[in-house]
Amino acid sequence: MGTLEGHLLPGVGFLMYAFYYSSLTSLALLQKQTVLNHLLLPRKLLGHRLIWQVSYEAVMKVIVPAFGIIGEYFYPLGVNRLKMIDWKDPRRLFIFKDNWQHVTMFGFFILSGVVDIVSQAQQARWSLKLERAAEALAFYVLGLLMITHIENKNALEIRVHLLLVLPAFLLALVLTVEIWVPDNAPLWVLKSWMGLVLSTWMMQICEMYIPLTGQPWRADNPMDLAFVTIFFCWHLALGVALLIAIYGLCSLWHRHASSWTKTLGTKYQRCPTESGGEELEKLSAEAVPQDGSCLACACTASSP
Amino acid sequence: MGTLEGHLLPGVGFLMYAFYYSSLTSLALLQKQTVLNHLLLPRKLLGHRLIWQVSYEAVMKVIVPAFGIIGEYFYPLGVNRLKMIDWKDPRRLFIFKDNWQHVTMFGFFILSGVVDIVSQAQQARWSLKLERAAEALAFYVLGLLMITHIENKNALEIRVHLLLVLPAFLLALVLTVEIWVPDNAPLWVLKSWMGLVLSTWMMQICEMYIPLTGQPWRADNPMDLAFVTIFFCWHLALGVALLIAIYGLCSLWHRHASSWTKTLGTKYQRCPTESGGEELEKLSAEAVPQDGSCLACACTASSP
Amino acid sequence: MGTLEGHLLPGVGFLMYAFYYSSLTSLALLQKQTVLNHLLLPRKLLGHRLIWQVSYEAVMKVIVPAFGIIGEYFYPLGVNRLKMIDWKDPRRLFIFKDNWQHVTMFGFFILSGVVDIVSQAQQARWSLKLERAAEALAFYVLGLLMITHIENKNALEIRVHLLLVLPAFLLALVLTVEIWVPDNAPLWVLKSWMGLVLSTWMMQICEMYIPLTGQPWRADNPMDLAFVTIFFCWHLALGVALLIAIYGLCSLWHRHASSWTKTLGTKYQRCPTESGGEELEKLSAEAVPQDGSCLACACTASSP
Amino acid sequence: MGTLEGHLLPGVGFLMYAFYYSSLTSLALLQKQTVLNHLLLPRKLLGHRLIWQVSYEAVMKVIVPAFGIIGEYFYPLGVNRLKMIDWKDPRRLFIFKDNWQHVTMFGFFILSGVVDIVSQAQQARWSLKLERAAEALAFYVLGLLMITHIENKNALEIRVHLLLVLPAFLLALVLTVEIWVPDNAPLWVLKSWMGLVLSTWMMQICEMYIPLTGQPWRADNPMDLAFVTIFFCWHLALGVALLIAIYGLCSLWHRHASSWTKTLGTKYQRCPTESGGEELEKLSAEAVPQDGSCLACACTASSP
Repeated sequence: MGTLEGHLLPGVGFLMYAFYYSSLTSLALLQKQTVLNHLLLPRKLLGHRLIWQVSYEAVMKVIVPAFGIIGEYFYPLGVNRLKMIDWKDPRRLFIFKDNWQHVTMFGFFILSGVVDIVSQAQQARWSLKLERAAEALAFYVLGLLMITHIENKNALEIRVHLLLVLPAFLLALVLTVEIWVPDNAPLWVLKSWMGLVLSTWMMQICEMYIPLTGQPWRADNPMDLAFVTIFFCWHLALGVALLIAIYGLCSLWHRHASSWTKTLGTKYQRCPTESGGEELEKLSAEAVPQDGSCLACACTASSP
Repeated sequence: MGTLEGHLLPGVGFLMYAFYYSSLTSLALLQKQTVLNHLLLPRKLLGHRLIWQVSYEAVMKVIVPAFGIIGEYFYPLGVNRLKMIDWKDPRRLFIFKDNWQHVTMFGFFILSGVVDIVSQAQQARWSLKLERAAEALAFYVLGLLMITHIENKNALEIRVHLLLVLPAFLLALVLTVEIWVPDNAPLWVLKSWMGLVLSTWMMQICEMYIPLTGQPWRADNPMDLAFVTIFFCWHLALGVALLIAIYGLCSLWHRHASSWTKTLGTKYQRCPTESGGEELEKLSAEAVPQDGSCLACACTASSP
Repeated sequence: MGTLEGHLLPGVGFLMYAFYYSSLTSLALLQKQTVLNHLLLPRKLLGHRLIWQVSYEAVMKVIVPAFGIIGEYFYPLGVNRLKMIDWKDPRRLFIFKDNWQHVTMFGFFILSGVVDIVSQAQQARWSLKLERAAEALAFYVLGLLMITHIENKNALEIRVHLLLVLPAFLLALVLTVEIWVPDNAPLWVLKSWMGLVLSTWMMQICEMYIPLTGQPWRADNPMDLAFVTIFFCWHLALGVALLIAIYGLCSLWHRHASSWTKTLGTKYQRCPTESGGEELEKLSAEAVPQDGSCLACACTASSP
Repeated sequence: MGTLEGHLLPGVGFLMYAFYYSSLTSLALLQKQTVLNHLLLPRKLLGHRLIWQVSYEAVMKVIVPAFGIIGEYFYPLGVNRLKMIDWKDPRRLFIFKDNWQHVTMFGFFILSGVVDIVSQAQQARWSLKLERAAEALAFYVLGLLMITHIENKNALEIRVHLLLVLPAFLLALVLTVEIWVPDNAPLWVLKSWMGLVLSTWMMQICEMYIPLTGQPWRADNPMDLAFVTIFFCWHLALGVALLIAIYGLCSLWHRHASSWTKTLGTKYQRCPTESGGEELEKLSAEAVPQDGSCLACACTASSP
């Protein structure tokens, strides 16, 4: 789906995930947590009792790409692209390569979601490594397929997609590092920022289908190519700005929640910070606001 | 031997090794070992007493490539390619470059096998570093020669072989890291998976000689090129599936062996886990099955 | 501004910064400091009292690129390039790509300066990580834009600018490493040297606009291209020489200051060196000059 | 000097150095040293008393490239290439680019030698870092210039020189790592092997000027290009073989020296091995030969 819709669905998915992850990171930093706790679905959902608890993000990782896959095969309504080889042709040619590429990308994000769900059911420490590995694999596959995807496309599409591969590959690298170095706060910030850049850049690609100036982008114009890279750099700064904004909002919420908690007398309920969390302690030498309580703090012990 | 047979022999060799190594890794994880113990040949073989003990894999590393080398020179029967320069030609041209490339690749795997045998005779700790270094060297040479191998070939062959170099090079990198960081459980899993991908991809190359659709692959068709990369990504997932299957089977065997041991009264024979094996302990925070005994556990002490 | 002036402003800016940073590094090594303390502006400036203390470099990082940006838009006097799209043209073409590229580069250095100022107002430990990250980002953007900048230019310009990207990218990498490994003395030396090479190479680019031989450089001559790389290697050595010179001058000043202090009776005022600064202690096993006092030593405690 | 002599001088220089360094490494491993001690020139040389002690290698690093530089300018006798610009030509063209490239390479090795001499006079611990950095710089410059050197050359020369850059760049990387991780025994072995590969490959390049088959190499023949890479792989194995041979000879000498020492009654003179040298201890878990004395052991204390 080299269309607006085909880029909008994953773009919005990434954007929601990046906002969610940035908020988690901000709250973890504000509450001086040593691990990043993901929000879990309520035990009881739509009247049914879940067998085990799963996080919102794991469910989203399965649902959003599943819609993507269905769209690849059956959108617009009436078509059916669920075949790989044109058996009617005696040469038995491969068909629908772009769709199968997209489906493969979506598939690996579903795999990552499934690993998350299974791992959260086990609640074993080593399964965190598997979660990171599956996520990293999804982004590596994204990069690898994107490089093939841009073959025989014009210079503008190549440029735009290479600049998409850049943050995707860096995200994959950071996730790989997290297999061995989990719970490192600067890595959370880096991932949040990279995620924001990736998703706003997806939005930029969507913009190219409905250009703001009313004039289409020109693939044969060096000027347009040059401005693509300039705009990517601006998206890097935009990612910083978004991250600061999210941190600011979380900070406001955190203060408000703290003061509200204080009046309720939970003043002395402090999080037992792990002795192993030196990295975070170094990172947050700031004075704790007067009360020092942390409401939503899940405080899972970790050996970093 | 740019033929089916020429790819089948190393392919099957890699596949056997990958299955073997994945089983070793699975058992080591199940038994919470801190080192990976290779299975050794019995002291007495075919009536002869071995001077020193060698592992199965070291022997296989020598025998399989040796058959490969013989095949390169004398297969199909009747030919003799054991010469490098055409002395009859006054220009003294080099000949049989592909065969010498393959022989060189096989030769470095034999070298790795010889280093294993010598190192296992010495049983010195530092020799593990040499084993890893020799293995890494074999894969680096595989990558280096493969890059030359694909010169003047068609786009499809270049693509297929580059995707073979990718896991080979990553394997070499991981093996290099293992020189300095031995006994790291996530690296075992990574190696197992990479090995499985490498060998199933070799099988895929074999398939290209006898295509399932009955139609040959077309090197000049962008569609075929695109699907090569898509299939590689599927092999990445296939590697994950195979690894889970092997782990499942090993897990079943491990439980069965444990319960069987239990009834025999070896209930209290526990493996002394090394104090240094924190990495593994972190990795296996799962509850030990009720009995907790480990039958086949070799439990060699290690200083990780 | 692909002109002499356009290269001279950032060149002189980098050179001043490199000299300043090299002096800081030299003094830190001579005084066996474990952290690099930047010089702060006086509390009272031009009669006004500053709300918080900022370092000279943070101010320079904002002011110099700000002049650069103004120059890009309005130099030479009378022009106005402060627009991106030619709205009069019905095709709505992008214009002034080079200027917007330069402005983006300058902008990220201003961003780094702003992060420095905010961080120095907070005086939190984690903000040092943000300072390094913002600096690294500025150099990554410099590299990324420079690669686009040289498109459709001649071979000589490509070569010259790629050799500029090399130290810029290495600087960015070192700054990235410093996010996780702060206060590592060999990294200070590496950064000083890279900074000196970067800035003398900027001076070399300026020379190309007013060649010493009186003859212009020839982009189509392989000889000229070859000598560009040779001269770059000489700049590497020049950077070493400049660094030694700066260290020598600082050493002279340090001895002089020490002996002068000695006569004033501050003989026993020693810097409490941090117990955590082993890296530096290893680095400076030299005998301390007889007096051993350190005048300007700021001695901020650090946990490396 | 794209001639036999031009490649023979640095080739022989590298080979001597690689043999020397491999012997040092072998003896250090045999004697379980934690640091690599370089042999120093005798205090009294040719009747003159040296102001400070320098190592043989530092002197060689200055003398061999110095001959190289003289050769570049004045060999064959009668010529004088000591000029960079043809001032007689009104276009003022650059001349003798190859010679200036070689001179620059030699110059950085002299710089490394000078750093060694100065550092050995100071005997400060941090100066070891500078020695490694200067060596690394020499090899980085070698790689950088070699890449320019092969411009406008034929495919064979490009291939041959790229394969020379490969071990040179890896050596530079290892030397860079040694700035932060000094006294790591596996790195010594890696450096020795890389040095041997680099120098035997230089000998291979010399062979190409006087081919053994009596027929010149053909740059336009894919066969010849393929065999260049095959031969490089064989040189990798040759490096391993040479290293084993040198280790074997050193081992023999070491045993002989030990037994000879034993009869002289120095039986109880043991080397105080550093408590910090765990890396080496892990590496040498082998049983010490019965006597356990170490004759030539310099045993300098180190904090690894």
